[in-house]
Amino acid sequence: MTRRVTVRPAADGYAWTFGGVPPVARITPGTVLEVFTEDCFGGRVRTRDDLVSKVCRFPFLNPLTGPFHVEGAEPGDTLAVHFVSIEPARDWAASSTVPLFGALTSTATTATLQPPLPEAVWLWELDRARRVCRFTARDSEITVDLPMDPMHGTVGVAPAGFEVRSSLVPDAHGGNLDTPEMRVGTTCFLGVNVEGGMLALGDGHARQGEGETCGVAVECAMETVVVVELLKGVSTPWPRLESDTHLISTGSARPLEDAFRIAQLDLVRWLARDYGLSELDAYQLVTQAVESPLANVCDANYTVVAKIRKAWLPPGVPHQDLHARLRATAAGV
Amino acid sequence: MTRRVTVRPAADGYAWTFGGVPPVARITPGTVLEVFTEDCFGGRVRTRDDLVSKVCRFPFLNPLTGPFHVEGAEPGDTLAVHFVSIEPARDWAASSTVPLFGALTSTATTATLQPPLPEAVWLWELDRARRVCRFTARDSEITVDLPMDPMHGTVGVAPAGFEVRSSLVPDAHGGNLDTPEMRVGTTCFLGVNVEGGMLALGDGHARQGEGETCGVAVECAMETVVVVELLKGVSTPWPRLESDTHLISTGSARPLEDAFRIAQLDLVRWLARDYGLSELDAYQLVTQAVESPLANVCDANYTVVAKIRKAWLPPGVPHQDLHARLRATAAGV
Amino acid sequence: MTRRVTVRPAADGYAWTFGGVPPVARITPGTVLEVFTEDCFGGRVRTRDDLVSKVCRFPFLNPLTGPFHVEGAEPGDTLAVHFVSIEPARDWAASSTVPLFGALTSTATTATLQPPLPEAVWLWELDRARRVCRFTARDSEITVDLPMDPMHGTVGVAPAGFEVRSSLVPDAHGGNLDTPEMRVGTTCFLGVNVEGGMLALGDGHARQGEGETCGVAVECAMETVVVVELLKGVSTPWPRLESDTHLISTGSARPLEDAFRIAQLDLVRWLARDYGLSELDAYQLVTQAVESPLANVCDANYTVVAKIRKAWLPPGVPHQDLHARLRATAAGV
Amino acid sequence: MTRRVTVRPAADGYAWTFGGVPPVARITPGTVLEVFTEDCFGGRVRTRDDLVSKVCRFPFLNPLTGPFHVEGAEPGDTLAVHFVSIEPARDWAASSTVPLFGALTSTATTATLQPPLPEAVWLWELDRARRVCRFTARDSEITVDLPMDPMHGTVGVAPAGFEVRSSLVPDAHGGNLDTPEMRVGTTCFLGVNVEGGMLALGDGHARQGEGETCGVAVECAMETVVVVELLKGVSTPWPRLESDTHLISTGSARPLEDAFRIAQLDLVRWLARDYGLSELDAYQLVTQAVESPLANVCDANYTVVAKIRKAWLPPGVPHQDLHARLRATAAGV
Repeated sequence: MTRRVTVRPAADGYAWTFGGVPPVARITPGTVLEVFTEDCFGGRVRTRDDLVSKVCRFPFLNPLTGPFHVEGAEPGDTLAVHFVSIEPARDWAASSTVPLFGALTSTATTATLQPPLPEAVWLWELDRARRVCRFTARDSEITVDLPMDPMHGTVGVAPAGFEVRSSLVPDAHGGNLDTPEMRVGTTCFLGVNVEGGMLALGDGHARQGEGETCGVAVECAMETVVVVELLKGVSTPWPRLESDTHLISTGSARPLEDAFRIAQLDLVRWLARDYGLSELDAYQLVTQAVESPLANVCDANYTVVAKIRKAWLPPGVPHQDLHARLRATAAGV
Repeated sequence: MTRRVTVRPAADGYAWTFGGVPPVARITPGTVLEVFTEDCFGGRVRTRDDLVSKVCRFPFLNPLTGPFHVEGAEPGDTLAVHFVSIEPARDWAASSTVPLFGALTSTATTATLQPPLPEAVWLWELDRARRVCRFTARDSEITVDLPMDPMHGTVGVAPAGFEVRSSLVPDAHGGNLDTPEMRVGTTCFLGVNVEGGMLALGDGHARQGEGETCGVAVECAMETVVVVELLKGVSTPWPRLESDTHLISTGSARPLEDAFRIAQLDLVRWLARDYGLSELDAYQLVTQAVESPLANVCDANYTVVAKIRKAWLPPGVPHQDLHARLRATAAGV
Repeated sequence: MTRRVTVRPAADGYAWTFGGVPPVARITPGTVLEVFTEDCFGGRVRTRDDLVSKVCRFPFLNPLTGPFHVEGAEPGDTLAVHFVSIEPARDWAASSTVPLFGALTSTATTATLQPPLPEAVWLWELDRARRVCRFTARDSEITVDLPMDPMHGTVGVAPAGFEVRSSLVPDAHGGNLDTPEMRVGTTCFLGVNVEGGMLALGDGHARQGEGETCGVAVECAMETVVVVELLKGVSTPWPRLESDTHLISTGSARPLEDAFRIAQLDLVRWLARDYGLSELDAYQLVTQAVESPLANVCDANYTVVAKIRKAWLPPGVPHQDLHARLRATAAGV
Repeated sequence: MTRRVTVRPAADGYAWTFGGVPPVARITPGTVLEVFTEDCFGGRVRTRDDLVSKVCRFPFLNPLTGPFHVEGAEPGDTLAVHFVSIEPARDWAASSTVPLFGALTSTATTATLQPPLPEAVWLWELDRARRVCRFTARDSEITVDLPMDPMHGTVGVAPAGFEVRSSLVPDAHGGNLDTPEMRVGTTCFLGVNVEGGMLALGDGHARQGEGETCGVAVECAMETVVVVELLKGVSTPWPRLESDTHLISTGSARPLEDAFRIAQLDLVRWLARDYGLSELDAYQLVTQAVESPLANVCDANYTVVAKIRKAWLPPGVPHQDLHARLRATAAGV
């Protein structure tokens, strides 16, 4: 029998970091987790006048639901998080420019003497029946409908080495990866660094372009269902995802080419471990077959994805076929 | 009546640079150009024993067919190159690791004290009837069939500022962009820097992954047909592409985040110019709608693509609707 | 009367992070602190056979002495740490290559398929009377004597935003800056992020080149004396240093140009705040007068220094003239 | 007997590129060359109202005196340029911000949506008797006197691979290195790529800070005397300098850490070749002894210097002791 755990945090019940926070619940492997996640602004940007610099206060950005202590998870193991459902909790979402944040502006680290870009808020209408996000321009009468493609920007575990990291940071522990690949039907694999793993998630996006150029997606609160599993004795140095069609490695670093290198090397080694190719042969095959969309080029580390189509691989079994089993579990939820 | 020009260079008739070379032909706008392009190795890598370091000699890498002087092209104009057909000229293609070249190795600039990776050649079988490229592993019995998706890695014009650049370099003049988007059905827009523009192309790939990880794609000689047009008085700071479905900007620079910034800013400004959005509104729309696949992370500059689906844009006319007209022309070739 | 506090940690009394650790002592502003700091290896590398990968265990690297809770320090204030004396505690020091660490090797983030460089240990003799560090080559009979120039690689406070960072990381909170400027006679200014500031230090180097190329300096335990002061209501976004001759800003980030930008912008703003120049005038003066030595190009962030000679500045008073007063205090210690 | 050649270009007699230009003179090794070099603005910025964007026109920036064809120079050889004297030709110099150029602004490649910084000119008074450059602030009454330290920002040869590069670019052929180390008493070693080498120089600076933060130094026309020599059969992959006290390697690339890697690896290999150390021992010695000042962080490539004090090296003879002989020659000029 599948265990179900539901968590809807109280207003002061969110976490703001990976690590350094006691668990909100202890769950066993196989648990179906139903959670509410607040948007990255803590739900405070609701009109065009709610400028982020006015209504939000650092470091109270990007609230996390969790962390969850997974029974039996120990350093060297891998947590698997399968996304059964990710549904916008409201019929609107918000985006914004944020001073000194984003890819097409100077920032606190790409520091220049120029004044910041103007701060502006866009409210998006979410038509959940039609699965559409409506963009309304500020400076003209233009509106555009884009397909809804809900995802979580932030999924991670407690980091290694006694560190505690802001929920805004993506790194080897996962965190703020901001990749559109983190959608329903996907399994996310995260290496465990501390006892219990301490899984947390948040930062729902109704949709997001690749690279998250201005730094802020179509941000919305989510009702999300995941199944959490545990792979004992399998290590996962960088977050991996698996969908029905693709193996997906991630790398998060600066400069961006290092994030690329991490993800590509991880995919090469994944093929070498689970598909019988030598590292050089895997390097050659990946070179010709890989898809390499950007995830974010705005966060504290940049994230790149390396994807390969499973239909283009020789026979092999990734992660003990766990994704396939989780798909079956999800079908029964 | 459409003019046709055919060029199959003699063995010593290739160019090795953009700029600094006299034209092989003068063509008028609207000309259908039928060219043979040799592979990046000059056709010298034909067996597994043909190591690049043995059979090739710098700077005789990446031969170009051209340049073509386009009548009437002046600085400030834009050349349009529409790809009607790109067909592998042989039933095999070659790939290789090259010492100190590629993304998962130290290089001449990402300089380390480590010895280079081993040099190895892979020969790929091209089944042109089935449109398949067959990978044969070196260190196991594994073979994999990947879809053929022919493209040109290198398309460009003479650079600005009296410069002459190696055919291995991608930059504002185009050149070695190495993006899989440069395929049949696409129009490439290049800003003219010198009288006649001096268009050249080469570096055919039977297919290529995004990022060209090991630095070398499935390299093959090509029989290619393009239509060349001229947009007077339209400037194009960085190479753009247009397909039936997408607008595509490119950026080439190091570090990789700068290539991203260039491409994204170019796309934002493209939408602002041709689709009636303010720059901030375009920034927001691009953030949520853009696809951002990597092109190459191995060349002298790295290249990133920023794509947006035309169906998701407000009404607008990119580049005076030239792509649509070229599609029609191509249909009649 | 000056208060003195002495701390020599027990073997299990070191901290491994900035933040997340209770204070070892509470001190009042003006306290003279006498501390022992262990070397970055925890004293475990003592012979050429003590390979780091054998005798050290992650994350037990770079032990810190502290943290010290400074009474009255609150977010928005600045701690000042004046180095009165830094003396090697032993007559030897150790350096080493470390697998996948350092500037001239691939690393965990500049990830390649190449095997790591060989691991090797160099023991340095310290002649404290003659102030000389003796290098003995491994692969030849060569020895070289370099001037001793003791410094602390790691000095910092608890980070902002509830974060806890490894002692190996340099960032806005200070930490593993690894700059040779952190020597006797210098005052280090650190912005306070949490109540008490939580100052800690370690990572003594008998000397270090600029950039710390192989990732490891001439590492030794130190007997160090500092005076700790507090500037209420003065914020310091990035660590600054002041010597009798120079103002010194630091920036820590990746890529390295961002670290440069941070340090230079900080110095421009320092001159604008304390020396009556407009930002543009300060930008011009810094451009012509600045010294910009690298600190480290190997750590989790890279660090660059921006120095300007005080004799070349118009009249001004940096940080309320605290450095001058601390020099006087130090003279009396 | 020493041959002397004097070149003072006519207004239209400057070169704007390395490569692609016929020689202004053919000289024999050992020639004393007396040249006039114009400032980087072509002498057009003479008052505060002479904004660069108004009075200069791309690509007519950074004029070069030369190129000089050195008899007998062939690919694989090294040219040596010893600076006997560099004297400002006028009693004033100019600096400026330039739109989208410099380190503390967005640029054409670090592309953002922000407007450029304001354009402003500073005129500097040069007191050649007192060897002082006087800064006069624009926005206050402040003046500051800085020591004159004349240097050439741009010294180079024709590039390899048939390329022609703008005089604004630093790379393996030298060019716009913008390092203050290029001063009187120094010998610059440049690898020859084409017959005759084709040496050219320009871009005199009365002084410059390390990193050339705003992108423009204290720019002035120069009367310069150099001795040019030739080392047959000695290759020099990246520009090197030698002073009476230091060996100096350079690296030019992006991101900045790659420029660092190139320079440090070059210095390691220099010590290994000429001083009898193994590469690993040289890596260790350089790590502890190197000085690593930035040269420029604004040009098309960034440049970093790696310096080591000759007094700290084991016995060795760099570049066949040519620097010492050139010092003697210079003493007799």
